[in-house]
Amino acid sequence: MEKLKVIKIGGNVIDNPSALEDFLRDFATISDAKILVHGGGAIASRTLEKMGIEPKMIEGRRITDADTLQVVTAVYAGLINKTIVATLQKYGCNAAGLSGADCNAIVSRKRAATPVDYGFVGDVETVNPGAFDLFLSSGITAVVCAINHDGHGQLLNTNADTVAAAIAAAMSGSYDTELVLCFEKEGVLMDKDNDKSVIPTIDKALFERLKREGRVSAGMLPKLKNAFDAIDAGVERVIIKSSGKLTLESGTTIQ
Amino acid sequence: MEKLKVIKIGGNVIDNPSALEDFLRDFATISDAKILVHGGGAIASRTLEKMGIEPKMIEGRRITDADTLQVVTAVYAGLINKTIVATLQKYGCNAAGLSGADCNAIVSRKRAATPVDYGFVGDVETVNPGAFDLFLSSGITAVVCAINHDGHGQLLNTNADTVAAAIAAAMSGSYDTELVLCFEKEGVLMDKDNDKSVIPTIDKALFERLKREGRVSAGMLPKLKNAFDAIDAGVERVIIKSSGKLTLESGTTIQ
Repeated sequence: MEKLKVIKIGGNVIDNPSALEDFLRDFATISDAKILVHGGGAIASRTLEKMGIEPKMIEGRRITDADTLQVVTAVYAGLINKTIVATLQKYGCNAAGLSGADCNAIVSRKRAATPVDYGFVGDVETVNPGAFDLFLSSGITAVVCAINHDGHGQLLNTNADTVAAAIAAAMSGSYDTELVLCFEKEGVLMDKDNDKSVIPTIDKALFERLKREGRVSAGMLPKLKNAFDAIDAGVERVIIKSSGKLTLESGTTIQ
Repeated sequence: MEKLKVIKIGGNVIDNPSALEDFLRDFATISDAKILVHGGGAIASRTLEKMGIEPKMIEGRRITDADTLQVVTAVYAGLINKTIVATLQKYGCNAAGLSGADCNAIVSRKRAATPVDYGFVGDVETVNPGAFDLFLSSGITAVVCAINHDGHGQLLNTNADTVAAAIAAAMSGSYDTELVLCFEKEGVLMDKDNDKSVIPTIDKALFERLKREGRVSAGMLPKLKNAFDAIDAGVERVIIKSSGKLTLESGTTIQ
């Protein structure tokens, strides 16, 4: 099977123009078939603030009301997505920006309003591999933002890690698929205060042990859970690594 | 040759959610191959205002400085484009939103800074028919916003009428192409105050006569000029009509 890399970057890269530029220059050199999934970053929050839209939070999590959905759709699917696509074109990587609505690529379901009504937040229901094959078969890199639709005209804001994992899982039937989750640290650390303590590989047994020993931080737990879900769904391997070392052997491999 | 309709809607439809919904429901029923090009509307201006970005105007025309480009990219390529795409999906029309950067579909050149520096405004240089064929050959309707790129990483704001005409011209080599420019009036009017005075067809001779007689309004002149440029470039016919009567025989045919 042909190799496919599904690579996800988060807000820490997007908020830093020179880190984003460096990352995209590296990304463009990857010769395998590839898909880029990007998160949001602080631009959306700053824009909401400038527009005087007060953030509504419940238990530390943002509620996506109608005004907020408009702003995140604009910022994620418009500003960030097109900035990335234009930069990739500059580096010779033919790219196409997608939301889940485009080519009906990803259908989400609005999260139930109980116990907490998060507003226009979606959970991925279906990934349409044909939508991604259309681009892959033409040598075009899909650049995916985490805005999806429900198929009935409603856009929904979705978690970018989950979107990346769902795409990787859906493509694993026809590609040897690797999911790469880039973030600000060097990998999964044995000691969270020591950047040199990267755990090279984690299998399920080690994951259970790390959890028992309380070595998995609250932020890392959903990332690892997501990674093992992807493995269970057929993804060959998941790599958690620094966005600054995309093309270097580095980070933590989950398999 | 297969028929292709390139249809352009402007701000008057986009600013009116129920008119936009009606238009898109009609648009989805068109069985010919089709491409939709959309303008901006007042949302971008309102957003700039809310964000406290003061409009810079020279001789009544907006200057697209760096902040303004960010906002129009967000609003046109993100909010408006994805709202249209999700609505078309609801009506069973598989659609994909595009800026000129996506699939390298449209390359523009930044307008010269003299005599007036309009900022990040582009004029269409190249339309890549292969980018549109990719979607047409899969039965997917491209939904195009008027944000392009220069191929060197710079996004540029471009006139949507010109984008529509340039796409129609580029596709006319391989399709029997009709360009439909939708706007708020019934067509080109003989008497601008009488909506019933629609001129059914205009050829070059009549256009010259109308200009001589001063019957072409300042707003209509560039639209007609654009239409005849498209005809000269190989487009079969151009129709200028009301966005409310998309699927009805109506408006003014230019050929």
